[in-house]
Amino acid sequence: MNRFEPNLRIPGPTSLPDVVREAGARQMVNHRGPEFAALQNGIIDRLKKFYKTTNDVLIVTAAGTGGLESAIVSFLSPGDKVLAITIGAFGDRFAKIATVYGADVTKVAFEWGKAADVARVREALVAGGPWKAVLMTQNETSTAVTNPIGQLAATVKEAAPNALIIVDAISGLGAVPFETDAWGLDVVVSGSQKAWMVAPGLSFVSVSPRAWEAAAVAKMPKFYFDLAAHKTSAEAGQTPWTPAVAVMFQLDAALTLMEQEGLDDIWKRHAAVGAAVRAGLTTLGFRLLGDPAYASDTVTGAWIPDDLDWKAFNGKLRKLGLIVAGGQGALKGKIFRIGHLGHVTVPAVLNAMAVLEQTLIELGRPVKPGAAVAAAQVAALETLGVAVPEGTAR
Amino acid sequence: MNRFEPNLRIPGPTSLPDVVREAGARQMVNHRGPEFAALQNGIIDRLKKFYKTTNDVLIVTAAGTGGLESAIVSFLSPGDKVLAITIGAFGDRFAKIATVYGADVTKVAFEWGKAADVARVREALVAGGPWKAVLMTQNETSTAVTNPIGQLAATVKEAAPNALIIVDAISGLGAVPFETDAWGLDVVVSGSQKAWMVAPGLSFVSVSPRAWEAAAVAKMPKFYFDLAAHKTSAEAGQTPWTPAVAVMFQLDAALTLMEQEGLDDIWKRHAAVGAAVRAGLTTLGFRLLGDPAYASDTVTGAWIPDDLDWKAFNGKLRKLGLIVAGGQGALKGKIFRIGHLGHVTVPAVLNAMAVLEQTLIELGRPVKPGAAVAAAQVAALETLGVAVPEGTAR
Repeated sequence: MNRFEPNLRIPGPTSLPDVVREAGARQMVNHRGPEFAALQNGIIDRLKKFYKTTNDVLIVTAAGTGGLESAIVSFLSPGDKVLAITIGAFGDRFAKIATVYGADVTKVAFEWGKAADVARVREALVAGGPWKAVLMTQNETSTAVTNPIGQLAATVKEAAPNALIIVDAISGLGAVPFETDAWGLDVVVSGSQKAWMVAPGLSFVSVSPRAWEAAAVAKMPKFYFDLAAHKTSAEAGQTPWTPAVAVMFQLDAALTLMEQEGLDDIWKRHAAVGAAVRAGLTTLGFRLLGDPAYASDTVTGAWIPDDLDWKAFNGKLRKLGLIVAGGQGALKGKIFRIGHLGHVTVPAVLNAMAVLEQTLIELGRPVKPGAAVAAAQVAALETLGVAVPEGTAR
Repeated sequence: MNRFEPNLRIPGPTSLPDVVREAGARQMVNHRGPEFAALQNGIIDRLKKFYKTTNDVLIVTAAGTGGLESAIVSFLSPGDKVLAITIGAFGDRFAKIATVYGADVTKVAFEWGKAADVARVREALVAGGPWKAVLMTQNETSTAVTNPIGQLAATVKEAAPNALIIVDAISGLGAVPFETDAWGLDVVVSGSQKAWMVAPGLSFVSVSPRAWEAAAVAKMPKFYFDLAAHKTSAEAGQTPWTPAVAVMFQLDAALTLMEQEGLDDIWKRHAAVGAAVRAGLTTLGFRLLGDPAYASDTVTGAWIPDDLDWKAFNGKLRKLGLIVAGGQGALKGKIFRIGHLGHVTVPAVLNAMAVLEQTLIELGRPVKPGAAVAAAQVAALETLGVAVPEGTAR
């Protein structure tokens, strides 16, 4: 991570561990042959452990947005009443897909930077319906906020027990706590370029038996994103259309790394880097976008101060090898975001803090060298439960 | 190409040249940053040369089937009259996608193994309509037949001048002669894992100005496969959804190889390997599926003799490192197919002929050692215009 090997701190694609990168260089195999069947079957079994589910998990060759589309068109019919909980650009996108395909969508939207309020969701559930499905976003990448999916799902189960719970977990699953079966989630979408530390090109979708019942009568038009076709093919160790084989090789390698670390330690690592980035940015004087109570441990957003020239600032960051993301939708030009998911360590985010410090100092801001790095380090250690020597912290 | 490095002779994914494989191991970049914009812009400019078009070319992260779906939903409305010319499983698939999205589809189907008959297509065009679009397949992978797209397009232009000409060129473009602009083709779909010698995961679609006019009023529901959204993003050096970055790195490397060889020589090479495989298989006693007048130079299909145990035969081929494809749709279990597109040379298909010879001899068939290899070699040389020493051929 220097100017020759950038510190890619965007919320996906995440950088790839070497062993994952190299798996992307493997020679092709017959996607209708036994090697591929073994590859896919193994990947699916392992994905289920990270999903914490016994439901089917299917692999779709597409970006995460394609996975979201499959989660709509495979289970719903035009005219179905759908409640879409949205806290940002990706929640809005999910609602838009359902609308485009003819669902009768009611949006319950929250201020960008806030999590969904469970009581207001309950009111919306009770006020309308009967709901065929409720859409929700686990981790809203555009605002760096993580929704309380367990509580939201429990509320849906109580107020609208027949509604399918369809979750965009693209930028959180595999990085932060998530319980597909314990929370009773019917359809859960993730994407290869996020927590999984793999190149983009694959989306994963878990499907409950109740969702398959809905699929049998779903009337939205679909072809490529028909998950029932994917299920039929998966049972034969195949995919309905030619899969992104090289990305699957990478996924196979990445799952091995994730198993070696273990899900609990992966979650702890993300909690530590999340705390570190928030502490570091705050020490640097940035105002964070996300509600601290629901701050995402995979991405952090910060407001760009009015007196900071973003282009000059970002240009300097780039020269020092730090690649961050800008804002999306209504936040474009107003915030920047630091991704910290998948292939991320505490040292990697401390490097980012050091670059931010140097850049702000170069721009003449009154920033104390080392202060943000120290604050980030302390926050990470405290999150990991490592005792900081007395009198040294802050 | 031995048992440790198989000779992957399926009609895609094709095997990857080393430099292409290795490009798949590159580290990720920001897909909203300048490196990606330069990568995509360069790829698009180079794809246009192989497409022989000045139309827009867009990159969609999906298998070829996703590209076909984008070519339907981006330009058509439910109820639009569509003539679908089909000569096999992929022609049927194209028609099915249009049907699923509500088009009023009339199929003009030809016997599997035959090319589309231009006169019959003209009759169908005149008998119905007005046609909003005509769908056709350049190279029907399931039957190993290449349609006369230039003639079919000329017929559409004469009999139904307002109809959009939408072409599935997935398994032919970049390997065999194709003229997007000279033939007046409005929408042309290809896929990374075919002639392009790249892993699967990307589809390419060229779009004429006339097709963009249709897109502006097209009413089929669409989100992920909305090519207008891809065009808007491409103008900013981006894609609307996260692209398969690693596959794009491979494509960039493969296009360099293709430029070094030159399109004319690529076409010649495919003509030579096509002739070689047909001559070799015929010499081995196989009956070819495709009409010789329209035989594909990217894939060859042969009937499995009644007295040949396919499983035992294919198992022996696999042990000797030769991976071939089975039949699709109505031809499943009845034919096998040998792919010869993209990363393919005359020696690679001679290796395949040698394995087939050995296998048939092991199975007790009266096959003369070396005869198929020789016949394939002679056919390749003749196709390349290389004089075969007198008295040595056959």
